[in-house]
Amino acid sequence: MASSEFELIATYFSGIGTARKDVHLGIGDDCALLQVPPGQLLAISMDTLVEEVHFLAGTDPELLGHKALAVNLSDLAATGAVPAWATLALTLPQSDPDWLAGFSRGFRRLAERYGVQLVGGDTTRGPLSVTVQVHGFVEADNALRRDGARPGDRIGVTGSLGGAALVLKIRNKEYSAMRLNTDLSRRMDQPQPRVEAGLVLSTLAHAAIDISDGLAADLGHICAQSGVGGRVALAELPLSDAVRGYVDATGDWSLPLEGGDDYELCFTAAPERCEAIEVGMRQAGCRLSWIGVVEQSPELRWIHPSGGALVGSAGGYDHFQAR
Amino acid sequence: MASSEFELIATYFSGIGTARKDVHLGIGDDCALLQVPPGQLLAISMDTLVEEVHFLAGTDPELLGHKALAVNLSDLAATGAVPAWATLALTLPQSDPDWLAGFSRGFRRLAERYGVQLVGGDTTRGPLSVTVQVHGFVEADNALRRDGARPGDRIGVTGSLGGAALVLKIRNKEYSAMRLNTDLSRRMDQPQPRVEAGLVLSTLAHAAIDISDGLAADLGHICAQSGVGGRVALAELPLSDAVRGYVDATGDWSLPLEGGDDYELCFTAAPERCEAIEVGMRQAGCRLSWIGVVEQSPELRWIHPSGGALVGSAGGYDHFQAR
Repeated sequence: MASSEFELIATYFSGIGTARKDVHLGIGDDCALLQVPPGQLLAISMDTLVEEVHFLAGTDPELLGHKALAVNLSDLAATGAVPAWATLALTLPQSDPDWLAGFSRGFRRLAERYGVQLVGGDTTRGPLSVTVQVHGFVEADNALRRDGARPGDRIGVTGSLGGAALVLKIRNKEYSAMRLNTDLSRRMDQPQPRVEAGLVLSTLAHAAIDISDGLAADLGHICAQSGVGGRVALAELPLSDAVRGYVDATGDWSLPLEGGDDYELCFTAAPERCEAIEVGMRQAGCRLSWIGVVEQSPELRWIHPSGGALVGSAGGYDHFQAR
Repeated sequence: MASSEFELIATYFSGIGTARKDVHLGIGDDCALLQVPPGQLLAISMDTLVEEVHFLAGTDPELLGHKALAVNLSDLAATGAVPAWATLALTLPQSDPDWLAGFSRGFRRLAERYGVQLVGGDTTRGPLSVTVQVHGFVEADNALRRDGARPGDRIGVTGSLGGAALVLKIRNKEYSAMRLNTDLSRRMDQPQPRVEAGLVLSTLAHAAIDISDGLAADLGHICAQSGVGGRVALAELPLSDAVRGYVDATGDWSLPLEGGDDYELCFTAAPERCEAIEVGMRQAGCRLSWIGVVEQSPELRWIHPSGGALVGSAGGYDHFQAR
């Protein structure tokens, strides 16, 4: 019977991730029962990946299992929260043991890396889609929000920008001067959530967001929600060699500015905290770049290396879209 | 652009339900930030409803909004937890304002009834499906689990059984001696989670489950996970007039035994607690029936009104399926 088949799948997912002491009851009852540490807030985020919308049919299930958890852990990172638990709603057209083994392997490896336990969820038949909710802990005073940026803050980003968008461009055959290799493809297929960087920032930064819609849009969210603007020097944007090659060849800055799916952190911090952030990021093994400053005026200006400035509203994304 | 359109939908859902003081940060940032009361466990449950699997295409969105939350609140009820927050992952083929207005109305009304705030989620384009996670609070000692039943416990159920399955049978034209009316249809389309009953049971019962797969299967889960069996008198099963009419006319007990989607609670309690439970259920305005007793032997016996017994394993569902 179909429903028992899917119940079996649920069993298959029990015991994924780290066995945590704060899980009083995990998978297998009406509810999971969980213990949030005293004095900590619960930070939660939920994201859905739908076949043919967020990933192509035939995507390696191991990469999908990784990515479904990674994009959610990235939200915890942007809040400065310590990851703890995940729930998984998996909708599948049929029960395919190889697919399930691959998916759970990708999910499990990332869960174990961050001490996350899968504590519940639902498995149903239907068009392929994956919804994950993550749960983490953060002290109220340390929680990073989008609305905390202050004029005078420096603007920082982790890692490098535009890599995932470059992969997409090459796959869509919109750019043929470069071939995909494993390192490049991973930027799109296996994003690494910046959990450690988020924890460094939690006690030192004023505001943060994860870059899932592109730097312009996401820094725009920080500015809009904080009631500020800013100035960013494109010359300071951290680019991989591949993305720099694309920008140099085409003069097109849309990959690092509008490219989604990088899952780096963009944040703002008072100048006197920047050195401590640099030390923390070095210890976390995370590349850090200072790309601009927060300003009182609500405009967001992007200074071109040639000296000219693109002026965007705080919702910079629409501006760049419209060009 | 498609993605902004779906971002707008997310905005549309902000502020749904009761505004709660324990929500430090709701919709609109990377994470929601939530405060679990000291000394309480967090109880969570997640369920997905997929079009053409759990509901028909063209289902009234208001009923769907209600049901998506109701089936999850039912899990909190079965745990004896007080509902607090919900997250919603909504996947839609297109953005249809009428549909969204209806869906949010159904969701909102039930959320407000139980003091639940919608604190996060995701809205994406794709085949219609709804995943909801609910979050509630319960003291560790009061949490109702499936594994707490003890020999000698009496077995109780709330409300009446088989109503949703009867609606399905009539809709599927498998039974024509009865017409659907509003009251009957609501059993299927608008289940009422037994939250108040669950709170009564939390301090008085040993074990509980919500009846989503039918009494036989779900009481079977309690027995299997508690390592016990039991005896149930079919004559004591609470049936609506409509379901009783069906059973009398056909001699078929499958609706109250195997019918899913009733979302009543099945529970076990020590005999000395039964009177207090009766008082509490009366105060909660909830019908209560004692239908059997828990026994040491792992068999689950269903005593037919004629005197014969159907013997099932603890996983009684498969037994009934196989007949």
